[in-house]
Amino acid sequence: MKKLDEHEIIKIILETLGQPPHPYSKIGDDVSVLPVGEGKLVVKTDMLVKKTDAPRGMKTWQIARKSIVECVSDFAAKGVQPTASLLSLGLPSSITRRDVHQLAAGFRKAREEFRFEIVGGDTNEADDIIIDCCMLGFAEKITERHGATVGDRLVVTGMFGYPPLGLKVLQENLKISGKIRRRAVSSVLLPRPKLKLGLILSKYGLLSASIDSSDGLALSLHQLAEASDVGFEVSKLPVDKETVDAAERSGLNVDDLVLYGGEEYEIVATVPEEKLKQAQKTARELGFRLIEIGKVSDEAGQVVFNDGSRSFSIERKGWIHLA
Amino acid sequence: MKKLDEHEIIKIILETLGQPPHPYSKIGDDVSVLPVGEGKLVVKTDMLVKKTDAPRGMKTWQIARKSIVECVSDFAAKGVQPTASLLSLGLPSSITRRDVHQLAAGFRKAREEFRFEIVGGDTNEADDIIIDCCMLGFAEKITERHGATVGDRLVVTGMFGYPPLGLKVLQENLKISGKIRRRAVSSVLLPRPKLKLGLILSKYGLLSASIDSSDGLALSLHQLAEASDVGFEVSKLPVDKETVDAAERSGLNVDDLVLYGGEEYEIVATVPEEKLKQAQKTARELGFRLIEIGKVSDEAGQVVFNDGSRSFSIERKGWIHLA
Repeated sequence: MKKLDEHEIIKIILETLGQPPHPYSKIGDDVSVLPVGEGKLVVKTDMLVKKTDAPRGMKTWQIARKSIVECVSDFAAKGVQPTASLLSLGLPSSITRRDVHQLAAGFRKAREEFRFEIVGGDTNEADDIIIDCCMLGFAEKITERHGATVGDRLVVTGMFGYPPLGLKVLQENLKISGKIRRRAVSSVLLPRPKLKLGLILSKYGLLSASIDSSDGLALSLHQLAEASDVGFEVSKLPVDKETVDAAERSGLNVDDLVLYGGEEYEIVATVPEEKLKQAQKTARELGFRLIEIGKVSDEAGQVVFNDGSRSFSIERKGWIHLA
Repeated sequence: MKKLDEHEIIKIILETLGQPPHPYSKIGDDVSVLPVGEGKLVVKTDMLVKKTDAPRGMKTWQIARKSIVECVSDFAAKGVQPTASLLSLGLPSSITRRDVHQLAAGFRKAREEFRFEIVGGDTNEADDIIIDCCMLGFAEKITERHGATVGDRLVVTGMFGYPPLGLKVLQENLKISGKIRRRAVSSVLLPRPKLKLGLILSKYGLLSASIDSSDGLALSLHQLAEASDVGFEVSKLPVDKETVDAAERSGLNVDDLVLYGGEEYEIVATVPEEKLKQAQKTARELGFRLIEIGKVSDEAGQVVFNDGSRSFSIERKGWIHLA
């Protein structure tokens, strides 16, 4: 019998449950939004299962930190400061005191980096380390997936390809060395969501639409295009020369690495043309980059690469659980 | 090496994290409370792991429903209507379409019973069915664990002992039959938290302190006593004659069944003496019961049974994960 992937499972569940009524956000969005007074309560849950989500070589404190990063990355893309978190733990009965200390240390590290409080949780027995992070925040407005219009510029907050390369080093013993190896491995073990940058870009209303890229650049582009009912023409892949060199030396396809890798924690967003310079200046002043990689087209749902010398369709594929 | 139980794990984590600052609620309370405008946001997460939390004989839709009941039970004790839920799922890659339909049906059933919306979640691969329910609600005030004062009456919202008896039927092939068997098994497979009753009792300010009893009556009494810095003198065990008869025929200790069973979904609360009649009348009018089982004493932390003919200390023990 054919196995069900994440998307098929959600589809079956939605057939039974339907979408929640107005004014709730839809199931499937990056975050859930509930009205509260004049503002919005923003909530996200993300479950980390060690066996499938923690690569070889990831320390227990890094696993704990990553479970929170998954939520923070979505908050960054929506421009919402996380306020408080609840952490549900499933732990094997063989868990050691040292591992529990490491988990706590990872949670504390994330709490200090992203400035929220840990206010509750739950502890259970499971066969694997499982961490479900529930993150809460409050906002007056959020940057949604829809809102991109034709002519807007397509931007990303950093270079892609490091996490897929790092995963190959950790999981498949890919032989690369030096700075590129360290940077690739670090991008997997210590992912850095661009929370500060996301907050400031949203605060100044510089983005017309935004999504995080943890399921990969290609899938994020397709989801953003679909929600905004537009297309994208990508004219430049966001990739460093060092990554291209390492990929070529290792016989890896650079396009695949950049587009279909997953575990990326950059923001993918659109910026109205007249705001692009201000947005890039704002990013630079904070020590970040906002890299223009293309523009919004009127061909709804079409995501293509075209740099004048090479053109191809960017496929709607990426990281899918249970695939 | 000695294994760590749930309480030891939480203690280690709190050594590292500390408690959140004012005005957040403390980690370890039944629910987390965040200030929002003039009111409170109430949040609870509870993880269900099939292997440890779903007894033999529990259908997949009942497992899904139970994952929500765990949260609803705490909301009932706090007197808060659940508003919205996010459901994080860990599912084995072998999960069938039929099982996913059943999960969705269980979620829908709970949604209809307890009147909240399901607004989001997450789907992952795991080795077992794991459901982390995050429940949200809004309240002007909540009934806390602290607040019981000497002379208050101790009440429960139903008779205890059915779930432990039902678990023995399902897991250990205990031979009992007829109505008591059906009721015991049903109390396990379809637990009924007293949400309506909890809401109305809290709304009218009839309770001075309250806790749910899902870790067992004894542990709930101790936790309520500790939080309120009082003691309890229990003069009557909340148990039906049919349960006593079944226990005696089966060679089971009735005290153990009623006090230390766990998986009970009643509210354990204290009522100021002058409000007891009104509270009981309010319960009756809704078709519920409020059973007086003792009173609050000034011996802080002491929980004793004394009915005039028999007296003993009620031990601080109950359902502890990873024990």
